[in-house]
Amino acid sequence: MMEAKKIVLLLVCLNVVSSPVIASPPTCAANLDSQCADSDYWEGEFFPGIPKIKYEGPSSKNPLAYKWYNAEEVILGKKMKDWMRFSVAFWHTFRGTGADPFGAPTKSWPWEDGTNSLAMAKRRMRANFEFINKLGVDRWCFHDRDIAPDGKTLKETNANLDEVVTLAKELQGSKIRPLWGTAQLFLHPRYMHGGATSSEVGVYAYAAAQVKKAIEVTHYLGGENYVFWGGREGYQSLLNTDMGRELDHLARFLEAAVAYKKKIGFNGTLLIEPKPQEPTKHQYDWDAATTANFLRKYGLINEFKLNIECNHATLSGHSCHHDLETARINGLLGNIDANTGDPQVGWDTDQFMTDIGEATMVMLSVIKNGGLAPGGFNFDAKLRRESTDVEDLFIAHIAGMDTLARGLRNAAKLIEDGSLAELVRKRYQSFDSEIGAQIEAGKADFELLEKKAMEWGEPKVPSAKQELAEMIFQSAL
Amino acid sequence: MMEAKKIVLLLVCLNVVSSPVIASPPTCAANLDSQCADSDYWEGEFFPGIPKIKYEGPSSKNPLAYKWYNAEEVILGKKMKDWMRFSVAFWHTFRGTGADPFGAPTKSWPWEDGTNSLAMAKRRMRANFEFINKLGVDRWCFHDRDIAPDGKTLKETNANLDEVVTLAKELQGSKIRPLWGTAQLFLHPRYMHGGATSSEVGVYAYAAAQVKKAIEVTHYLGGENYVFWGGREGYQSLLNTDMGRELDHLARFLEAAVAYKKKIGFNGTLLIEPKPQEPTKHQYDWDAATTANFLRKYGLINEFKLNIECNHATLSGHSCHHDLETARINGLLGNIDANTGDPQVGWDTDQFMTDIGEATMVMLSVIKNGGLAPGGFNFDAKLRRESTDVEDLFIAHIAGMDTLARGLRNAAKLIEDGSLAELVRKRYQSFDSEIGAQIEAGKADFELLEKKAMEWGEPKVPSAKQELAEMIFQSAL
Amino acid sequence: MMEAKKIVLLLVCLNVVSSPVIASPPTCAANLDSQCADSDYWEGEFFPGIPKIKYEGPSSKNPLAYKWYNAEEVILGKKMKDWMRFSVAFWHTFRGTGADPFGAPTKSWPWEDGTNSLAMAKRRMRANFEFINKLGVDRWCFHDRDIAPDGKTLKETNANLDEVVTLAKELQGSKIRPLWGTAQLFLHPRYMHGGATSSEVGVYAYAAAQVKKAIEVTHYLGGENYVFWGGREGYQSLLNTDMGRELDHLARFLEAAVAYKKKIGFNGTLLIEPKPQEPTKHQYDWDAATTANFLRKYGLINEFKLNIECNHATLSGHSCHHDLETARINGLLGNIDANTGDPQVGWDTDQFMTDIGEATMVMLSVIKNGGLAPGGFNFDAKLRRESTDVEDLFIAHIAGMDTLARGLRNAAKLIEDGSLAELVRKRYQSFDSEIGAQIEAGKADFELLEKKAMEWGEPKVPSAKQELAEMIFQSAL
Amino acid sequence: MMEAKKIVLLLVCLNVVSSPVIASPPTCAANLDSQCADSDYWEGEFFPGIPKIKYEGPSSKNPLAYKWYNAEEVILGKKMKDWMRFSVAFWHTFRGTGADPFGAPTKSWPWEDGTNSLAMAKRRMRANFEFINKLGVDRWCFHDRDIAPDGKTLKETNANLDEVVTLAKELQGSKIRPLWGTAQLFLHPRYMHGGATSSEVGVYAYAAAQVKKAIEVTHYLGGENYVFWGGREGYQSLLNTDMGRELDHLARFLEAAVAYKKKIGFNGTLLIEPKPQEPTKHQYDWDAATTANFLRKYGLINEFKLNIECNHATLSGHSCHHDLETARINGLLGNIDANTGDPQVGWDTDQFMTDIGEATMVMLSVIKNGGLAPGGFNFDAKLRRESTDVEDLFIAHIAGMDTLARGLRNAAKLIEDGSLAELVRKRYQSFDSEIGAQIEAGKADFELLEKKAMEWGEPKVPSAKQELAEMIFQSAL
Repeated sequence: MMEAKKIVLLLVCLNVVSSPVIASPPTCAANLDSQCADSDYWEGEFFPGIPKIKYEGPSSKNPLAYKWYNAEEVILGKKMKDWMRFSVAFWHTFRGTGADPFGAPTKSWPWEDGTNSLAMAKRRMRANFEFINKLGVDRWCFHDRDIAPDGKTLKETNANLDEVVTLAKELQGSKIRPLWGTAQLFLHPRYMHGGATSSEVGVYAYAAAQVKKAIEVTHYLGGENYVFWGGREGYQSLLNTDMGRELDHLARFLEAAVAYKKKIGFNGTLLIEPKPQEPTKHQYDWDAATTANFLRKYGLINEFKLNIECNHATLSGHSCHHDLETARINGLLGNIDANTGDPQVGWDTDQFMTDIGEATMVMLSVIKNGGLAPGGFNFDAKLRRESTDVEDLFIAHIAGMDTLARGLRNAAKLIEDGSLAELVRKRYQSFDSEIGAQIEAGKADFELLEKKAMEWGEPKVPSAKQELAEMIFQSAL
Repeated sequence: MMEAKKIVLLLVCLNVVSSPVIASPPTCAANLDSQCADSDYWEGEFFPGIPKIKYEGPSSKNPLAYKWYNAEEVILGKKMKDWMRFSVAFWHTFRGTGADPFGAPTKSWPWEDGTNSLAMAKRRMRANFEFINKLGVDRWCFHDRDIAPDGKTLKETNANLDEVVTLAKELQGSKIRPLWGTAQLFLHPRYMHGGATSSEVGVYAYAAAQVKKAIEVTHYLGGENYVFWGGREGYQSLLNTDMGRELDHLARFLEAAVAYKKKIGFNGTLLIEPKPQEPTKHQYDWDAATTANFLRKYGLINEFKLNIECNHATLSGHSCHHDLETARINGLLGNIDANTGDPQVGWDTDQFMTDIGEATMVMLSVIKNGGLAPGGFNFDAKLRRESTDVEDLFIAHIAGMDTLARGLRNAAKLIEDGSLAELVRKRYQSFDSEIGAQIEAGKADFELLEKKAMEWGEPKVPSAKQELAEMIFQSAL
Repeated sequence: MMEAKKIVLLLVCLNVVSSPVIASPPTCAANLDSQCADSDYWEGEFFPGIPKIKYEGPSSKNPLAYKWYNAEEVILGKKMKDWMRFSVAFWHTFRGTGADPFGAPTKSWPWEDGTNSLAMAKRRMRANFEFINKLGVDRWCFHDRDIAPDGKTLKETNANLDEVVTLAKELQGSKIRPLWGTAQLFLHPRYMHGGATSSEVGVYAYAAAQVKKAIEVTHYLGGENYVFWGGREGYQSLLNTDMGRELDHLARFLEAAVAYKKKIGFNGTLLIEPKPQEPTKHQYDWDAATTANFLRKYGLINEFKLNIECNHATLSGHSCHHDLETARINGLLGNIDANTGDPQVGWDTDQFMTDIGEATMVMLSVIKNGGLAPGGFNFDAKLRRESTDVEDLFIAHIAGMDTLARGLRNAAKLIEDGSLAELVRKRYQSFDSEIGAQIEAGKADFELLEKKAMEWGEPKVPSAKQELAEMIFQSAL
Repeated sequence: MMEAKKIVLLLVCLNVVSSPVIASPPTCAANLDSQCADSDYWEGEFFPGIPKIKYEGPSSKNPLAYKWYNAEEVILGKKMKDWMRFSVAFWHTFRGTGADPFGAPTKSWPWEDGTNSLAMAKRRMRANFEFINKLGVDRWCFHDRDIAPDGKTLKETNANLDEVVTLAKELQGSKIRPLWGTAQLFLHPRYMHGGATSSEVGVYAYAAAQVKKAIEVTHYLGGENYVFWGGREGYQSLLNTDMGRELDHLARFLEAAVAYKKKIGFNGTLLIEPKPQEPTKHQYDWDAATTANFLRKYGLINEFKLNIECNHATLSGHSCHHDLETARINGLLGNIDANTGDPQVGWDTDQFMTDIGEATMVMLSVIKNGGLAPGGFNFDAKLRRESTDVEDLFIAHIAGMDTLARGLRNAAKLIEDGSLAELVRKRYQSFDSEIGAQIEAGKADFELLEKKAMEWGEPKVPSAKQELAEMIFQSAL
C-alpha cells in the first residue's frame, strides 16, 4: 500500500520541529547529497546535547537522569548492574522507522542518509556505541541483517557483515559485549513460508547458512548467548500445512545448530524466544510450555534455554510473571526481553515497561532464578510511532531501566520483609509432614491415601488469603 | 448471591408453558409431595412424546430425525457409528440446571423432585438410559458425584455410588458402556485450592480416595477410558502459590493413578482434558502442548492420552483443529469433547457444535488419526439457559450429531477428491529429494547446507495457494 | 450440575480452620437448630475481633488499618471522604457465597443459618451496618432481592422488603444512606429472557412492578441514586431475537421509570451501568458510548447518567480510564463501581482494585469531573472464592479503599506538579490561534482550509512525547 | 527495521516459480531498464491467461469460474448483481505488497516497474480495469493516494491525481463506476497524530484540502458514496491526549465535509467506517453504536451512514451480523466491507470471507435492509502474504463473491421456508396484545404495569428454542 522508497527519501532531511526537553542535534542542512551524506561529519558526536546519563535519585525531575537505577549500588548482595545486565536492541533503536501496517516511516534521525549502504551501516554502528556509552550499559543485541546490508549474493552479504562486525568489535572496546546475536529469518520474502520450517528445501539451506554465519559473528564479538526467534516458523492455515513434517525439520535444524556451536567452541547459551502469533497466525514456539514440549520431544531440552518476552507472554494469554515462572521451574529461564504490551490490544506493541507492579513480579522471578547470567534484560522495545525526537530514544530507555530497577528494589523489600514468603510457606505446611514427605517421594499409593482419607474425615481447608497477599505486595511498591 | 435452595423447590413443579414441536411429557400435577415424588410413577416412560430418533436424510424437516447421521452407513470403509462413537454426558443432560453466575436454575424437568436423594438418583439414571436408547447411541460419560449423592462420610458416599452404579450396570444391558468415567474434584468446597494440587495434604488424600473409587466403578461398568479434568488444578494468583511444588504433587498423584489402574487390571486409556482457565485464572493443563510438556517432564508421556475439548481449545487461543492436530502429532489424540464456544465470548459456553466448516476440520483430524477408538465423541455440551423444553435436549443432541456426521461426509468427500492433499504434497515436494532425505535423517550439517546455499543462489519460493486451498475446502461443504 | 441446597446446609456450621491475622469470631457451636439459629445471640457483635479501622499511615504493617485513606484529610481542597464517597455493596459482602460455575459455595459466615428467612435477612442487615460502621464509611448499595426474601406473591415479597427496609432505615441512623438501590432483574428464572426486554409481556409488567417498588424503597431510605444494570437485557443469539423491538421496549420502560421517579418526588440520579456481555452473549448497554447512543436515540440523554464499572470497561475492550473519560465528555459520569478484572481472563472477576497506576488514572478522571457527587465509589467487588476468613472481608475493603486513596494522592501530586497538563496543553497549542478558533467555531470551510494548506506547505508535526508523559506519570506513583 | 527500497528493486523482476493452475502471464524478461519499464508493452493484456470469469454452477471444479454467483439470476425478486453490487478495492488488489510488520513485500506483479511514477500509476489503472472486466463486476473503490503519486506540493499532487482520474474515467466506460472514493489520511507521517483530530492545525487544514479534492474526484467519476475511515483518528495514550477537544475537531471537520458536498452537488452518501483499534490503540469510530453516538451528539445523524467491515466488527467484540443489525436498526446501514478475520487473532487480517454461515447471516441483514444501494459490497480483503501468483488475485475474489452469493441463496431459502421468522414472531406474540400495544405506544405507566403484574401472578416463560433456531438455520446451508 505504501511506497516506502520515495517517502524515506523525502523524510530524511525533513525539518521536524518539536519542543524537546533539550536542544536538538544538528539536522541535515539541505539535502541528501551534501552534508547529510558526508560521513566525515558524522565521525563526531551523534547525540551532542545528551550528557552521560547519571543516577540522581527518586526526587529528580530530570528526564535525562536515572531515578531508581544506580548501577553500582548493591541490592541483595549483588550490584544492580549485575542483576540487570541491560542490553540495547540495535534493531528497534537504530533501524526502527516508525512504520506500521497502515503507516510509512516517521523517524528521520539526523545521521541517516536514506540509504542502506555499507557506509551508512558503519555510521549507524558508531551512533549505537555512543548511545550505549551515554546510557552507561555494557551490552547490545543485534540481528545480522540490521547491522549490515544484503549483497547480491550470500557471499557478498557475508563480506558486508564481516566489515561491519570488525568495526563493531573495535567500538566495543574492552567492556561492551553482545548479550546475544541472532539471524533475521523473517523480513526477506524468501522466508515467507519460514526458515527452518519453509516448505522449500533451498530456503532451509539458506537459513542454515545464515544462522551458521550469525553464530560465528556472535562468537567473534564475544557474545554470551545466541537467540532463535521463529517469526515465520508457524502457519497461516492448517489447510495447506504439514505441521508434523515442519516440526521435524525445525528439530533437525536446531540439532545442526547445536552441533555447529560445539564444533567452533562457542560456549554461549542457545535461547529460543517464544511468541504465540504475529506475524503468522500460529507460531510453533507459542509460549514457554509449548517450547519446552518441543525441546523434550526432540531430545533438545538440555541444549537450549528460553528468552521470555513479556509482550509475547501476554499475547499467549499469560501474565509475564507466569511465563517467567514456567520457564524457571522447567530450568529454562535464560534471558528476558523487557517490554510490555497493551492489555486491550491484540498485537505486539513492544512498549517500554512502565508498570511498577509488573516489574516487581518480574524481578521476583529473576531473584528466585539467582539472576539471569549469562543472560540479561534486552530492551526489545520501541518508541511509539509518534515519538520522533532523538531524545525520546533516551527517555524511553531511562524509563524502562528505572522501572525494572524500581521493581528490583521493591522485590528486595518484599524478600527482606519476608511476610509474603511466610504466607506461602504456611499455606503448604501440611505437606511438611510425614505423609507429605511420603507423597513427595512417590511412596504414597492410592490405597494408603484412601486409608488416610477415611481416618481423617472431612479435611480442613483454610483461606488462601489472596487479598492479604495483594496487600503485602502493594505495600512494597 | 442467590438462594438456590428455595428457588429449586419453587421451580420443580412450575407449569412452564411454551410452544414445543411435540406435546410435553406429563408434568407434575400439583406439588412435591404427591405425584412428583412418587417414584413408581416414574418407572415408566420419561419422554413419552419422543420417538426413537431415525435417519430421514437431508431433506427432512423433522426436528426429531437425523438428516446426516446414518449409524450403519459406511464412510471411508467404516460405519458412521464406529467413526463417531457418540456419548451422552450425564452431567449436562441430567444435572444441568441452567444456573449461571448471575442466574438461578431454569430447568424443571418433570422427573425431578427437587431432592438429591438416592431414589432421585436412580430415577434420573433410568431417564438417562431411556434418553440414550431413544437417541440410538451406545455410550455415556459421568462424574462420580453427578450420578449419586454425597453421604455423611466418604464410606457412605461410596456406598451410595455403588448402589447407583449397580442399577446403571443393569440398565446398560449388553450394548451400552461408559465411554469414560471421571471423578468430580471441583464442585465441593474442599477442592477450592485443587485436588491433587491442593495446599492441604488431607485434600490430596481425599482426592486420591475419590479417584481410586471412580476408576473402580468405571472399570466395573466396562468403561473404555478414564478422564482427568483439573478444573481446580491451577491458581488464582501466583503471589500465594508455589507452582513448582503443586506440579510435583500433580505428577505424584497421576503416577499413583497409573499404578492403581494397572494393579486392578483396568485397561482403559487414561485421558487428560486440557483447559486454559475457568474456573481458575490459570489451569496447569492449559492446552495440548502444555499438557504434553508436563507428561514428558515427569516421564508419564506413555501412560496418558488427551481428551481435546473444542471450546477449551479456542479459549486457549487455538482453533479446535489446531489442538487436535497438536495432540495427534504428539501421539496423544485419545478423545474429543464435542462442543463449541462463542468466538466473541471469553468463557466456556459449552454449546453444541453447529458449524459445518469446523466439524469438517475436526473430522479431517479424526480420519488422519485412524479414528478415536477406544475414545470417541462425548457431548460435553449443554442447552442454553433459556432452552427449557424437554424436547430441546433431543433437538440439541440431534443437531450436534448431525453436524459432526455432516463433517465426516465432507471430510470424506475432500479425501476422495484428493486435490487438497495433492496441493499439500506438492508444497513440500522439494524435500522429497536427496538433500531433503539427508536433512530429514539428521545428516545435513550447517557446513553442507551452507555449501548448497552458495551453490543454489537465491531460492525459488512459490505461492502457498491458501485461497485455493480454502476454495477447495469450501467446495466440499 | 450442583446440588446447592444440600451443600449450603452442610456448610453452614462447617468448622473451617485457618490462620487468620486475628482470632475468628465465635462460630456455630453445633448445628442449625440451636445457637446458630438463635437470633438473640446475634443481636450482639458480628465482628468481635475487628476494631474500628483507623488511619495509621503508609509505614503501618497492620492489615486492619488504613495506610493511605485518611477520611478527614484535605486533598485539592476537599476531604478525602468527599472525593471518595465509598459504599459497601451488600450483595458481594453479605450474599456472596463463593459459588462459581463449577463450584459450590465456600463461605460459611458464622451469622448465617442456612436459610433465606426474614429473620435471617434482618440479622444480616445488622451485620451489614456493623461492617459499615467499623469500616468508617457512610454509604451502602443493595439489590431489592438481596436484602429480603421472595414471598409467594409479589405482594408478599413487597411486604418482606418493607419489613427489612424499615429495620435498615433504623440502623442507618442519621449518617448512613444508600449510595444507590437497584432491582435484581437477572437471578430469577422469570427474567431469563430479560426484564424490560423479555419476549413476554407478563415479565415486562413484573419487572416494572419490581422497579417501581425498588425506587420507592430507595427513596424512603434517602438513597442518592438509583441504578439499572441490564444483566439480562441482551441476547444469546440473534437468530431467535428481534433486537429492534427489544430496544424499543427498553426505552419505553425507562421512560416510565423517569415518569414515576418524578411523580413520587425522588430526586436521585438514575444511572445505567454498562456491561458488554456476561451473563448474556451481548448486552445492550455494552459500554459508555453504546449506552449514550441508546439514550440519545430515544430522547433520554438528559434523564440518566452512567455508573462505570472498571471490570466491565475492560471486558468491552477499553481501559477503565477510557470509559470514564467517554462518560465524562458526554456529560454522563455519575458513579463508579470500583473493581478490577484480570487482564488475561474473559469474564467479570470483580476483584478489589489493587493497581496503583490504574487507580491514579481513575482519580484523574474523577478530579476532572469535579468529583462524583451525588454518586460515589461503590465496591462492586468480591473476595476470591478461596478467601474464607471473616477478616478477609475487611482486608479486601481496606486494600480497595487504600488503593483508590493512593490514586487520589498521586493524581493530586500530578496536578500540583503541572508538567503533565502542560505537556498536553502545548501539544494542542497550534489550535489556540486565529485559524484554530475559526475551526472550533465551525467557521472554517474546506475552501478556506485548502487555501491555508496551500499557503503553509508541508505541516510540521512534533513528537507526541508519550514516553515522557509516561515517565512523568510514573514519577507520581 | 526493513529497507524496503532495495528489496522492492530486487524483487520487481524476480523470477518466482510456482505451480499455478494456469500458465503465468509473461514476466519481465531481464531487468528494470528494458522491457519491464517499457510502457508500450503493457498497453496490451495484463492477465493473458485468465479468461472472463463465468458462472458454471456448484459442481464445477474450475477455480476460475463462479459456482454460486450468477449475476443475472433473480433471487427474491432482484438480480444477484443488484443485491451484491460488488466492488474491487484498488488498494489491496493493486497496491498490496504483502509487507507486514515483520516482513518486506512479497508480491512482484509483472506489470510493476518498482517505481511510484505517474506512468506506472496509469499502467496500474489499466490493469485494474482489465481485472474488473474479467471478473465481471461494475464497481471499484479507491484511496486518492493509491491511484496517483504524491507530488512535491499539494498542488502537484492534485495535478497527478487529475491526470490519473482522467484516464480512469475513460477506462470506466459507460458501465463501471466507483462504489466509493476516499482520502488516505493515515499512511503519510504528517498524519501520525490524526487528520481531523491531529494536534496540529496545519495537518487539520491539509486533511481538509485532501478530502475536498477526494470528494471532487469521486463526484467527477460518478461515485455513489464517499467514505471516511479514521485510521489515525484516535489515540495511543490518554496521558498525552485531549479526547474531548479532538472529538470536537472531528465534528467540525465532518460538518465542513457535508457543507462542501452539498455545495458542489455531490449526491453520494457519506459513509463512516468504524474500526475499534489498529493502527492506534483506540479509534474514535470504535463500532456502529459508538459512531452513532458521535453522530447524534453533534447533530450529524442524518448526514451519514455506516460502512460496516466484518473484520472490524469482530475486532470490536461483536459478530459481523451484530454490527450490521446495529447499523440497520439505527437507520445507518449503507455499505459493507466484505472480509473476515481470524477468530483467534487480534489484528485485522482482511481475509476474503469463506465462511458460509457468516455469509448467510450477513445476507439476512442485507435483505432486511432492502438491499444496500446506493452502497454495495466492497472487497476490502487481501491475499495472504504468501500467495504470490497473479491468478491468486482472481481465485480470492471468486471465492469471496461465491461465498456471499451462497449466503444470499441460503438466506433466500430461509426466508422462503419461513420457519425461522415464524419462530421469532411467536416468541414475541405476547406483545401483540392490547397491553403490548399500550406499552409500545408509551402509554403503560408503572402503576398500570404493577396492577397487571399483581393480577397475572407469576408469568409463564417459554423456551427460547435457540437450538431449534440453529438447526433450522443450518438446514439452509
